[in-house]
Amino acid sequence: MPEPAAELDALELDPTDRTRVRRKAERGRYDFATVAAILDEGLIAHVGFMGAHGVCVLPMAFARVDDELYIHGAVGNAMLRELSTGADVCITVTLVDALVLSRSAFHHSMNYRCVVVVGEAVEVEDDQEKARALRAVVDHTLPGRSDDCRGPNASELRTTRVIRVPITEASAKVRSGPPIEDADDLATPFWGGEIPLVTTRGAPIADEHVPAGAASPAYGG
Amino acid sequence: MPEPAAELDALELDPTDRTRVRRKAERGRYDFATVAAILDEGLIAHVGFMGAHGVCVLPMAFARVDDELYIHGAVGNAMLRELSTGADVCITVTLVDALVLSRSAFHHSMNYRCVVVVGEAVEVEDDQEKARALRAVVDHTLPGRSDDCRGPNASELRTTRVIRVPITEASAKVRSGPPIEDADDLATPFWGGEIPLVTTRGAPIADEHVPAGAASPAYGG
Repeated sequence: MPEPAAELDALELDPTDRTRVRRKAERGRYDFATVAAILDEGLIAHVGFMGAHGVCVLPMAFARVDDELYIHGAVGNAMLRELSTGADVCITVTLVDALVLSRSAFHHSMNYRCVVVVGEAVEVEDDQEKARALRAVVDHTLPGRSDDCRGPNASELRTTRVIRVPITEASAKVRSGPPIEDADDLATPFWGGEIPLVTTRGAPIADEHVPAGAASPAYGG
Repeated sequence: MPEPAAELDALELDPTDRTRVRRKAERGRYDFATVAAILDEGLIAHVGFMGAHGVCVLPMAFARVDDELYIHGAVGNAMLRELSTGADVCITVTLVDALVLSRSAFHHSMNYRCVVVVGEAVEVEDDQEKARALRAVVDHTLPGRSDDCRGPNASELRTTRVIRVPITEASAKVRSGPPIEDADDLATPFWGGEIPLVTTRGAPIADEHVPAGAASPAYGG
């Protein structure tokens, strides 16, 4: 059973050998609320697993529901078939907030928020959980959209595989703020600071089936 | 020796068991020019490798120089130490261009451009190649910036590890255009089309060492 959301908000995850941040350890975060917020803001996850011919990392749509992470795809998808039998997986979601420009090349950096979830991938067999996960994936991409389209029918559900990974062995790493500078470099003429990066939604592009003159949805902006 | 750029532009990569796009095979691209363009536009790479405790995927700054891909970090960085001895690696760079909204939940998608490079990671020992790679990483993040900061000194070079992966076993996967629709869904009242996603640079935020009144650099978007 998933933990109630209120308890999750106060949860501290135990760092393990795989999730403890070693390099720049002060940037490590192990509270569930931070992990969840980064997962919810990220649009795609990079999913790593051991394939038949070596390690493999592929981008996937995903969603979080309480303390479970879901990915999905066609039943014919080779990666999901591989993952469906309890494979070891590492799922990484990264947000880049700013370029960090130091007066030295050496101290250039980025401000970022990153989550790593590791664990055992399991196929979701229960139809209700599957339907809930698929709604969550659509709504994760665009909040509210699953009420604004036709839901999956029996055949679509049957041909879709949903994979669940628990968000229990996980951590975040966060950098923010100005560049690090060596004292000697402050006398150089070079500029130092942050260049924020912002991703926005552009104006919706209707497909050829939308009637001429129909109002654009409020999805842009 | 790297191939001359002009020859690379016309190069077709041979798909292998690891890089052939199987699912939606028509979205696979194997021409070097497409692979290079996606790598050059991507800001971070997700680097996957087999760690001591399981598969691991971490975001990294990177750069392409001709047909080599470079990542770097502190010599104390555990991943780079692991990679320095010829480890099998999968490096994935993903650009998301649009949300693709279909009238059915099932056909929701994204327009994206993604590159997967697999191969053997090798540490760069040659100082000149190392310096060139580090310049490329800075300039990849912000074109021209490596001329606009202090370059690495001997001590910084010594404490930085640079890893090279050849861009020979690689492929791209690209989706573009409007949603797929089932004919039956066209009579539904739902909107279908694309919501473009655009990442821009915001106004530069000077750090506390930039003199008051100094001009902002032209790095913003």
